[in-house]
Amino acid sequence: MQDILEKKNLDFAFFHNLDSMKINPNIAYFAGYNGLGALVIPKSKSPFLLAPKMEYEKAKKSIVKKVYAIDKKKFFDSIKIVLKRNGIKGKKIAIDNVNFNLNFYKNFKKDLKGIKTRDISLDCLRLRQIKTEKELQIIKKGFNYADKILKNAINNFKDFKTESGASSFLEYETKKLGFDVSFPPIVASGNNASMPHHEPENVKLKNGFCVIDFGTKYKGYCTDCTRTIYIGKPSNKEKGIYNFLLNIQKNIVGNIKINDNCGKIYENCVKSLGKYSKYFIHGLGHGVGVEIHELPNLSSGSKDKIIEDMVFTIEPGIYLPKKFGIRIEDTILMQRKPIILTKVPKDLLIV
Amino acid sequence: MQDILEKKNLDFAFFHNLDSMKINPNIAYFAGYNGLGALVIPKSKSPFLLAPKMEYEKAKKSIVKKVYAIDKKKFFDSIKIVLKRNGIKGKKIAIDNVNFNLNFYKNFKKDLKGIKTRDISLDCLRLRQIKTEKELQIIKKGFNYADKILKNAINNFKDFKTESGASSFLEYETKKLGFDVSFPPIVASGNNASMPHHEPENVKLKNGFCVIDFGTKYKGYCTDCTRTIYIGKPSNKEKGIYNFLLNIQKNIVGNIKINDNCGKIYENCVKSLGKYSKYFIHGLGHGVGVEIHELPNLSSGSKDKIIEDMVFTIEPGIYLPKKFGIRIEDTILMQRKPIILTKVPKDLLIV
Repeated sequence: MQDILEKKNLDFAFFHNLDSMKINPNIAYFAGYNGLGALVIPKSKSPFLLAPKMEYEKAKKSIVKKVYAIDKKKFFDSIKIVLKRNGIKGKKIAIDNVNFNLNFYKNFKKDLKGIKTRDISLDCLRLRQIKTEKELQIIKKGFNYADKILKNAINNFKDFKTESGASSFLEYETKKLGFDVSFPPIVASGNNASMPHHEPENVKLKNGFCVIDFGTKYKGYCTDCTRTIYIGKPSNKEKGIYNFLLNIQKNIVGNIKINDNCGKIYENCVKSLGKYSKYFIHGLGHGVGVEIHELPNLSSGSKDKIIEDMVFTIEPGIYLPKKFGIRIEDTILMQRKPIILTKVPKDLLIV
Repeated sequence: MQDILEKKNLDFAFFHNLDSMKINPNIAYFAGYNGLGALVIPKSKSPFLLAPKMEYEKAKKSIVKKVYAIDKKKFFDSIKIVLKRNGIKGKKIAIDNVNFNLNFYKNFKKDLKGIKTRDISLDCLRLRQIKTEKELQIIKKGFNYADKILKNAINNFKDFKTESGASSFLEYETKKLGFDVSFPPIVASGNNASMPHHEPENVKLKNGFCVIDFGTKYKGYCTDCTRTIYIGKPSNKEKGIYNFLLNIQKNIVGNIKINDNCGKIYENCVKSLGKYSKYFIHGLGHGVGVEIHELPNLSSGSKDKIIEDMVFTIEPGIYLPKKFGIRIEDTILMQRKPIILTKVPKDLLIV
């Protein structure tokens, strides 16, 4: 980040979070802190955190050494005081436009007179998309835990009566260990499976394909995996369509190469799906990191390139409205070759 | 909302959500929809929803009758087409600045040429702070469920070995029923309790005060309740400080009247806390609705007034850094008198 500030001739980067129900992914990434407050990264001096009194102790556990306790009501005054105390006089500030809402921006501009802001949201996403060795260690461990939890749930699927029963079990097993989920687990059975973002209901699991989309958040890093199982007895046609999609998924994963264009990978998938392509209603994949959806973006028109040490999903799906849905999703670590991080078996499991 | 548009001479209100990990609270409030897309409320015509293909089926289940499936990649083009098709020509648009990020705003202004926006975030919050009879029915039912789950967990607290074990149990019991939690349950024991927003860890529950902060989200509406129990044998001094805080909490709740100033209610609490007031490091309370933190704001300097049919928390706390923490929180429904919605007993429970 300091290299970027140097190159773009900016004095410091400013990130903030004032909503206790949210996390600023860039503060999580740069500081290892997911609470309230602000992170300042000066061009050449040490970074520091400002946290409201009620989160000061938590902020002290972050990787940032300098932490200031502030009064949330005097947020902008506190920032000015701390900037001054650290001898930071510059007015050219790097901000992340995606995590700046209009109200906050107006107050920011009014209170910190004379500042000029420049959007570095894309720079942050580009830093985050390439994982370091240390990040990969954490990420691999997260996938090991996630695999175990998902395998256990799938192998004992007969025990679940309802979608919410299966979904809450996945979450419970994760949180018992003190980790978080990367999103509320999706369990969508019968015609509900035709909605990619179906929210599990307290309804009896229906016969047919059942989509299970689950990920953990371990030490700040997300995992992501979808398996589709079959409840009851699939027809030959159903087995056929599952294996058709599975082969496409395996082919895509197996053939990814460094420097590939992400939009093109998506287009190739659409081509392979043939007459089913109109039932493929979402992107093919996304990067995974401190956020569940990051760069690269593997969807229509994307100009992103595959780079070494990227972590991203490949998740083609077929959704027949009000009938059924199938999705098969792996997360890939790109090294010289693609490495599959999600090791839960993919052959159609019938329960 | 249409009355507000009329009064402020605005052509339509526009709300959007493009992040599947987030909910736009105003779309949830006005449309009963928590997915991706946009909601348009014209000044005098019927409202309509625009949802990406992958969430179209979900959007059809909302209370808005007109729903359009759009291509997320052509978001602004789709909006223009749908506005035209509905004969909406006006350029004066009501937006919610808090849920508009800078990047989106820039594209919005560029693509919808000639528009003028006006912030109505506060108008939305003010609508939402007064609950209708129908909302109160849902809210009361939510609190009944939440009370049962929390009571059950507290009464069986001996069964829990770790903070994350207790916290994940609360969440599991909620999600099994197909509901959500309003936030990840807080279970903070021993010196962890001195951090109001402590995240439960996979560590043995420590002796001493243990803060349990838990809420459900039932049919889109949040509940909120905190109880502090004692693990082990409290000293007379510890019992004394708990009862001191409990009496303050009961006094505040019992004396709230319509038209009271919220800043003053907070100040009165600070006065009652005397020498402990410096260990009270957060606001006294907040409104509860489709979001867990809404208006009114019961903290220092607030000018909000107590109005009939508001639903809000009263949650004084005492936090001795690195030593212990106590918080007692009820949610109140304001009618002619304050009605306590959280019925879990408040006397110090020793486990």
